[in-house]
Parts: sequence; structure tokens; C-alpha cells
Amino acid sequence: MTLTLPATERKLNIWPGLIEAYRDYLPVTSATPVVTLQEGNTPLIPVPTIAAEIGKQVQVYVKYDGLNPTGSFKDRGMTMAISKAKEEGAKAVICASTGNTSASAAAYARRAGLKAFVLIPLGYVALGKLAQALLYGAEVLAIEGNFDEALTIVREVSRQYPVTLVNSVNPYRLEGQKTAAFEVVDALGDAPDWLCIPVGNAGNITAYWMGFCQYHSEGKCDRLPRMMGFQAAGAAPIVNGHPITHPETIATAIRIGNPASWDMAIAAQSASQGSFSAVTDEEILNAYRLIASQEGIFCEPASASSVAGLLKVKDQVPAGATVVCVLTGNGLKDPDVAIKHSNNPTKEGIAANLDAVAKAMGF
Amino acid sequence: MTLTLPATERKLNIWPGLIEAYRDYLPVTSATPVVTLQEGNTPLIPVPTIAAEIGKQVQVYVKYDGLNPTGSFKDRGMTMAISKAKEEGAKAVICASTGNTSASAAAYARRAGLKAFVLIPLGYVALGKLAQALLYGAEVLAIEGNFDEALTIVREVSRQYPVTLVNSVNPYRLEGQKTAAFEVVDALGDAPDWLCIPVGNAGNITAYWMGFCQYHSEGKCDRLPRMMGFQAAGAAPIVNGHPITHPETIATAIRIGNPASWDMAIAAQSASQGSFSAVTDEEILNAYRLIASQEGIFCEPASASSVAGLLKVKDQVPAGATVVCVLTGNGLKDPDVAIKHSNNPTKEGIAANLDAVAKAMGF
Repeated sequence: MTLTLPATERKLNIWPGLIEAYRDYLPVTSATPVVTLQEGNTPLIPVPTIAAEIGKQVQVYVKYDGLNPTGSFKDRGMTMAISKAKEEGAKAVICASTGNTSASAAAYARRAGLKAFVLIPLGYVALGKLAQALLYGAEVLAIEGNFDEALTIVREVSRQYPVTLVNSVNPYRLEGQKTAAFEVVDALGDAPDWLCIPVGNAGNITAYWMGFCQYHSEGKCDRLPRMMGFQAAGAAPIVNGHPITHPETIATAIRIGNPASWDMAIAAQSASQGSFSAVTDEEILNAYRLIASQEGIFCEPASASSVAGLLKVKDQVPAGATVVCVLTGNGLKDPDVAIKHSNNPTKEGIAANLDAVAKAMGF
Repeated sequence: MTLTLPATERKLNIWPGLIEAYRDYLPVTSATPVVTLQEGNTPLIPVPTIAAEIGKQVQVYVKYDGLNPTGSFKDRGMTMAISKAKEEGAKAVICASTGNTSASAAAYARRAGLKAFVLIPLGYVALGKLAQALLYGAEVLAIEGNFDEALTIVREVSRQYPVTLVNSVNPYRLEGQKTAAFEVVDALGDAPDWLCIPVGNAGNITAYWMGFCQYHSEGKCDRLPRMMGFQAAGAAPIVNGHPITHPETIATAIRIGNPASWDMAIAAQSASQGSFSAVTDEEILNAYRLIASQEGIFCEPASASSVAGLLKVKDQVPAGATVVCVLTGNGLKDPDVAIKHSNNPTKEGIAANLDAVAKAMGF
């Protein structure tokens, strides 16, 4: 085979992915091999219908991180975690995950030429959730145990074998995720007044706060936002002040009873004079439908909790405030929820002629 | 309710969507209300593993249009079609579609405050394909007829009632889609040597060629690419020279027997000294798995036909050439295919302890 030059040597006039874009703010050096799918640089979309529900000249935007390469914000952390794993000579990575983390880990690991192992509890997840990880070429191992056991085993594997752990305990994950805050500031020219964000494992709220604080200390923004975290009512350990043994919510991406970054999330909320609140599944689904049917944006149910939360506490929003709601994942990750919870059923049994169709359309 | 200022009045320092980015090249005026979800500006990702399979110092990139807001290149045409419909005072739009067009039409129409009607043949499509359109708030009408009848009826509806047709016959669709060629040139600094593209209804190859020619005539690129169109073997009317009555392929997004833009596609191929070739479902699925498992990119099966085609005719690629393969849609649109055709089955029945897992991992 003829050896080809790496295609990446050619300088493209495009967004280079978040490590190159924010290199000065990240723990990388010239020795770090950058593993990228051009993640980041996601849309910040005005949502005027939601702003109108609040009134008071408030401006509301959604940060649509579902348009990252594997469909969720996890790619921000994974480009860092996999690049550093490659730098350190890893040949394989592992995670315990039933959703977005496994997809992202598999994509970046395989792009880097590393093996990707994903440990899941047998019978715990619908196979559909693993479609991405499987096609990306992850080796999926289903153990006869629960999710906690899976997490314990992957930690142990990474200690005893040459396999890098890329679950949220990997410190580079938050470093990558903080770039979303940079992008929000770069887009708006300053930090927003409020940052509304879904809280599950509490890593993302922690990372956003890290990003805002770092940019603030470097003089890139004049102010810091209030961090408004929203948990699903059936999985709200931080709101309730204690772990939840059996968390339940339709927002599976934040169905977590004992968040890994609990303390750091509390610190972010406290320092920013923010708050944590719970939103019910009904409120989440209402927001999920509203964002899609009024603004044209399809997000995961968990993502909609940021908008549901904003609408729930809208009386507290200061007049004229700028608010950013984080949408962490793409609605295409969970099409079954869309079909089940759309309020807009298909009309069937219409004869195949103009008059019948026009009548069905209301003419 | 307090009247709020439109959030869009605030100038954001971000990609503004393709109409604002390429306003000078598009049929819009200051009177056109721009309906945007910040579509376009999609990644152009180097795929070194695929380049290495070709050798000869060839550089290969994929244009990953699956990262548009609704997950496919259709958004490029729809931002134009809906903006113009709104400008012309439309209150509703209609299309006959079983897939990406209906999702995109619904999202942009609802964002613009228009009604969206989607006509489908009853029983013809899996409901899963309509998840997006339903959640975006489209009114889906299933007629007791076939797809051709649906198309005939929507044309007639748009003639007799105040409803704008946004199927591919809408002339603004191709105008929007041509911006993908602009982005490729802007990223590379010139047109590529080859542009490999899936061909179904043949609108996209037509639009790319329009874009390259327009940029060339404006002096934005020095050369024009060879347009290399690829059809699925079971749905290859242009390759075979006659319409296909019952097109069949796993690549549903290009399962079309009588392309609307047939003549224009031939003109593009001819003027560019390009070619049309057919790829089998097996070749498409091999490319689909390769792109995911070696490059970390998850596309629709139809999208993979561009890469499958490139690999099929790799002996014809000139040494040192720059090649762009168009990936038209996001793999998340069709997770069932991923699960069914992944060669990487889940390993089950592993005991929940370190030794069993390590053994399953090959240690």
C-alpha cells in the first residue's frame, strides 16, 4: 500500500473542532494527537415563542448541542478524553453506559484507532439505544448484574489492565465540556443572565460553570450567569437533598439517583446564586412538544427539562434578561418517545382524491 | 402580554444560517423574512482510512450534512422554500413525503408559524420514519392510495388552495441546496477534483453543480469538479437509462424509480465529464459500516452510497486528487438498520466480576 499523507495535514478553512478552537484554555500540548470530528460550534438559536411566554422583554436562546457529531454534548468531553488517552499510549477505552456516553466513546475511540469496550447490565436497556455504539464498532459486553456493578467493574478493569476509563470520572471530560460556555459567551458577547440546564450526573452544570469562570477570569466576559439546574421530579436527588434509590423519569438521560458531580454542582449553584428545581415528566413532555412544534427544534426529553424549568420559574426571570437553555441531545436518539407523545395523530382512511384531502385539511 | 422584541434582532456572533451567509448568491431580498434554524456550515471531515484504501496520495473528505438541524441536507432547501412561502403570504405548506423532506418541511413551517401538511400513502411507511414530522407538529394525512397518487394530489391542492407545495418541484429548494457546494469550496479553497454523491431524485447533484458553476463564474473557484453520481443497483434508473417501476434498496432515501431532476443531473454529469454508476446494497452496507467503525461517522445507508461508489471506482481516481463524498443524512434517522447490520454483536451472559469481563475483553 502506498503511504498517504494524513489528510488532516491540509489546512481547511473551517471550524477545526473544539480542541483547536480553544487550545489555549485546555490541557493539551503540541504532543497531544487531536482526535476530532469537528464537534462543538453548535447553534445558539433564538426561541421567540418561549420568550413570549415569559414576556418582560426577555430574550431566550437554546444551545442545541444535539447537533454534535454523535448527537449529544458528550462529544465535547470525548474529544478531550480520547485525545489524551491516545497521547498516553492507550490501545483501548472502556465505559459503563447505556446511552449517549457509549455512542460518543465508541465514535472517538474508533476514529483514533483504539478499541472501545462498553459494559451494560443485561436486560437493562433497549437494544435500540445501543445502535450507535454497535455500528461505531464498540465491543458491547452485557453482564449479569446491575448498572452499579458495571461501573465498579470498569473502574477495576481500568486499574488492572491497559484500558483507559472514559466514564465521567475521567477528568478530561469536564475540560472538554466547559467549551460550551465559551461558545455561549463568544456568541452573545458576554455571559447570559441565566443558564438553564438539565441536571442528571451533574457533570455538565459543573463544566459550564468552570467555563464561565475561566472566561471571566481571562476577561472574556464581564459577568457570570446564575446557574439554574433542573432535575426530573422522579430523579431529583440534589433538589431533595438525598440520593434516590430507584430514580424514574421519561427523561432517561438524566435518570440518575446519585450524581457523580453532586458537590461541584452545589458549589456552582451556590457561587452563582442559582438554584435547583424539579420538573415533572408532564412538564418535560409539554416543553419537549413546545420546542419542536413552535420553534422547529427536536431534542431529547431530558434536554427539554431546561425549558420546562425556565417556564416553571418564569416569574423569577428579571425583565430584559438574556437566558440560555441547554439542549443536551438530539431528539432522534429516542424516536419512540416522539411517536408516543406527539399530540398530533396521523389522520387515516382518507380517500385518494382532491376533495377528500382538502376536506381533511379543513378547506 | 407584553410585546417582546424579536430575539433575532440581536446580532449574534455566530453562523447565521445559509441565507444570511450566502445572501448575495440567493434569490432573496430585504423583504424576505428569513426562516432559519442555523442550517448549513456542516463539517467537512477528513476520512484517512478511506483515503488509504485508495492510496495514490489521494485526500478524501466527507461533507456530513446529517448535522443539519433536522438531520439531513433537506434543511438547505427548506430554509429557502419556507422563507419564500412566508414572503409570499402563505399560511400553510404541503408535501408528499415519507422521510427527510417531511421532517424538514414540518420544522421550518412550524418555526415560521405556518401549518404543515404531510401526505403519505397508508401502510407504505413505518411510523418511525414520521416521528420527527409528528413531533414538529405536522398534520399527517394517510391516503388510501400510493405515493404517486399522493404526489398528484398535493400538486392539485397547491393549485386550488392557498397552500404552498414544498416538494422538490419547488424551485427554491435547489437554490438552497446549492450552498453545500459553496461551503465545500470555501473550506478547501477551491473545488475538489471529484464530488461523489448519492443520486435518488437527482435534485442534490443538480444543486451541487449549480453551486459549483455559480461560484466558478464569480471567480470563487478556479476549477469545477467531476460529478460522480451513485445510485443503488435496485433503484438505478439513470444508470440503466429507463425508469424503474418497483425500485428496491436498503437505501430508502434514494429508492426512487423516476427522478424528478433526471435531465438536469445528466447535464451536470455530461458538462463535468463525470459519470453515473450503481452500487449494490452489500457495497452500500459495507461502506456504511466502514465510515462508522473506522472514521467515527454515522450516516444514513443512502448516504454511504457515495463512499461505496468511490471505493468501487477507486482505480479511476487520479493520483493526488482531492475527493469529497456527500453524506446526506444522519444515521440516527434509521437506527433499525444499524442494529440489524452491525457486524459487532453484543456479548451476553458475562458474569458480573472482573475476571469474567477481562476474559471477555481478551485479556
